[in-house]
Amino acid sequence: MKKIYLDNNATTKVDKEVYEAMSPYLNEEYGNPSSTYEIGKRVKDEVSKARENIAKLFNTESDRIIFTSCGSESNVTAIMSAIKANPDKKHIITSSVEHASIIETLGYLARNGYKITFFEVDEKGRINLDDLKNAITPDTCLISVMMANNEIGNIYPIKEIAKIAHDNSILMHCDAVQAAGKIKIDVKDLDVDYLSISGHKINAPKGIGVLYVKDDKNFIPLIFGHQEKNRRGGTENAPYIIGLGKAVEMIINDNYKLAEEEKELRDYMEEQIKKNIDDVFIYGDLENRTPNTSSIAFKGVKADELMLVLESFNIYVSTGSACNSELAVPSHVLTACHANLDDYSPIRVSIGRYNTKEEIDEFVKVLINNVGMLRRK
Amino acid sequence: MKKIYLDNNATTKVDKEVYEAMSPYLNEEYGNPSSTYEIGKRVKDEVSKARENIAKLFNTESDRIIFTSCGSESNVTAIMSAIKANPDKKHIITSSVEHASIIETLGYLARNGYKITFFEVDEKGRINLDDLKNAITPDTCLISVMMANNEIGNIYPIKEIAKIAHDNSILMHCDAVQAAGKIKIDVKDLDVDYLSISGHKINAPKGIGVLYVKDDKNFIPLIFGHQEKNRRGGTENAPYIIGLGKAVEMIINDNYKLAEEEKELRDYMEEQIKKNIDDVFIYGDLENRTPNTSSIAFKGVKADELMLVLESFNIYVSTGSACNSELAVPSHVLTACHANLDDYSPIRVSIGRYNTKEEIDEFVKVLINNVGMLRRK
Repeated sequence: MKKIYLDNNATTKVDKEVYEAMSPYLNEEYGNPSSTYEIGKRVKDEVSKARENIAKLFNTESDRIIFTSCGSESNVTAIMSAIKANPDKKHIITSSVEHASIIETLGYLARNGYKITFFEVDEKGRINLDDLKNAITPDTCLISVMMANNEIGNIYPIKEIAKIAHDNSILMHCDAVQAAGKIKIDVKDLDVDYLSISGHKINAPKGIGVLYVKDDKNFIPLIFGHQEKNRRGGTENAPYIIGLGKAVEMIINDNYKLAEEEKELRDYMEEQIKKNIDDVFIYGDLENRTPNTSSIAFKGVKADELMLVLESFNIYVSTGSACNSELAVPSHVLTACHANLDDYSPIRVSIGRYNTKEEIDEFVKVLINNVGMLRRK
Repeated sequence: MKKIYLDNNATTKVDKEVYEAMSPYLNEEYGNPSSTYEIGKRVKDEVSKARENIAKLFNTESDRIIFTSCGSESNVTAIMSAIKANPDKKHIITSSVEHASIIETLGYLARNGYKITFFEVDEKGRINLDDLKNAITPDTCLISVMMANNEIGNIYPIKEIAKIAHDNSILMHCDAVQAAGKIKIDVKDLDVDYLSISGHKINAPKGIGVLYVKDDKNFIPLIFGHQEKNRRGGTENAPYIIGLGKAVEMIINDNYKLAEEEKELRDYMEEQIKKNIDDVFIYGDLENRTPNTSSIAFKGVKADELMLVLESFNIYVSTGSACNSELAVPSHVLTACHANLDDYSPIRVSIGRYNTKEEIDEFVKVLINNVGMLRRK
C-alpha cells in the first residue's frame, strides 16, 4: 500500500535534486569551508552561492543571511539578540499561537525578570492589531509574531505589525518557518529586523535554518565562534547549506507555481470532503491561509482516533504540531482559537510538493468510508 | 595527482558506512521523529539507537546525551548552563589554549560582568595544576578545559582538574572534540559535569554534536523547545544523528585500534622527517599527545609558504586551526606556548582514518625536496 504523506507542515521529504546537490559534500568534497586551501575554498564557494540564493528569495543582501541549525535556533537567536541589544527594556509582545521554540524561550525569560504579553487571537485565529498596539509599553523591546501558523495556516499581517513596532522604537522578529516557499517574503518590504526560516519545511533536510538580520548592531551571537562573520560559531554544515540553497533555487525558478498547485489540491480536497461528509468544520482564517494547510474536524470524531484509522490505510496526517506531539495536551493554538475540541477536534492536513490528485481522492474516500463508523463509536 | 589529506583535525571525510547509514533518512525515511505515527517512530527508534551508542562509548546512560548541531553549540550550552545554574558566582577559569567557541563565549561574558582567568601553559603547552588551583576564588562557578588541543595535540589531565573543581564546589566542563575517537573517554571516571563532542572530527558529517550533561539540575537549554526532553529545541537532525551513531559504533567495535595505527603512522612520519631534515622542531607535550597530531616546524621555513607548496602537490595540512584561518593572525595556541614563530613556524599534520604509509612516504619526500628551497628564499 503506497504511503500518502499529508503532514508536510511537520516535515518534508528531501527533494531528489536537493539530495543530489548535497551528496558530493557528504562524500569526496569534505573540505572545511574555513580552511584556506583549495579543497576548503571549493566548499566555501558553494556555501556562498547557497547564501546568495537565499538572499535573493527574500530580497536582501547575502551578508544579511546567517546559517543556523534549525528554525528554533533562529528564533531563539533573534529573541536573545533583541533583548541583549536593549538591556534596559524588559517587555516582549507575542501572539498566543507561536511555535514552541518561541513560547518556551519567552517562558524562560518570564521566569527571569521579563514581562511577556501573549496577545489573544479570535475564534478564527486572527490577530486584532488594536490588541497588539494596546500591549505596547515604553518597556517593550521586541514584538515576535509568526508569518504563518503551523496548525491552522493563518497568515498574519507582518508588514503592519513591523510598522507598529518601529513607530514605537521596538524591534520586530518574524518566525517565517511555515511561510517560506508558500507565500512571497520580501524582507525589505516587510521591514522586519529578524526573520527565521527552516530547511526541512521546504524539501531540504532537518538540521538547517536561516536567520535574516537587518542590522548587525541589533545582533549578538547565540553560538560564539568565527564562522558566519563571527555571528555563528561551528564548522559550517556545508552539505545541508548547499542543499538548502538548491531547495531555494527551486522555489525561485518555480516562482510559487507549486504553492498554487498545492492550493488547488487543498481547495479541491475541502470541497470534496464538505460535499460528501456532513458536519465538517475547518479551523482558521479560511480566506487568508497558507495554500497547503487544512485544519479540519468532523463533528463527534476524535482526531487522534481518526489519525490512527488513517494510519492503518498508510495515510499520514497529524493532530497539532509534531513539536508538541509528545505532550499529549490540547494544542495551544486550538485552545487560543477557542476550539470546541469535544465536538470538533481537527486533524491537520498539510499538502506538499509530491502530493497528487489521486492521493487526495484516496484520502477523501477513506474519510468517507470511516468517519461514519468513528461517529457511531 | 591523488589528494593526500593530512588535516583531519580540521574535519574528516564522512565514512562510507556512515553515509550509507544516513542515506535512507535523507531519502524515503523522512518522518519527523517527534511525530506519533509509525513513519515518525521508525526514525525515532534509530535516533534512540544512536544515542545509546554514544552513551556506551562514553560510559554513561543515554538520557545524559543531548544532540546539538556542533561542538561549538555544545561548548556554549555548557558554559551558559553553568553560569545560569550559579547566578551569584561571576568567575570562570579556563586555559589559554581553548577553542575559539570557548574563548569567544568567555570574551562575551567578560564584557558583561564576568571575570575570566585564562591560565597560562608552558612552552610545551602543558598546564600547571597549581596555577589552576591558585586561580580559584569563592566566586568561581566553572572550570572549562579541553581534553586534547586541536593544534599541538596535548592531552590535559581532565580527571585531576575535575577533582580540583569539585573539591571547590565548582562545575567542570570539558571540550573533548579533539579527543573523541582518539583516546578513551569515560565520563564517570573523569567525573566532569559537561563534555562536548563533534561529529565531523570522527568521520560523521559537519553539523552534528553532542553534549553530555551529568545532572539536569545544572542544565538550562540554549535553544528552547520540546525535543531532547525539553533540553534542545529544533526538529531532530535524524540523518546526522544516525550517521554519528554509526561513526561511534565503528569506534566501539574497533576499540581504538585505529588510533594506534594513526599513532604508528604519525611516529613513523616524525622519525622519517627528523632523519632526513635538519633543524626540525615539534611543538607540544610529545609524550602526551593525541595519536594523530604533529605540530612540526622547519627552521627558517614559513608555515604558510610551506602549506602552499604542499598544496601544489595536492597535499593538505594546515597552519593553526581552520576555525581561525580567516583571521590570519598567529595562532593563540602557539602564542600561549611561547612559540618562536619567526624561526620555527609549524604546520599541523593531523592523520586520519584513510591515510596510508604510502601517503606519509610521499609527504615526507615532498618535504625533503622542498624544505631546502624554502629555507634559501
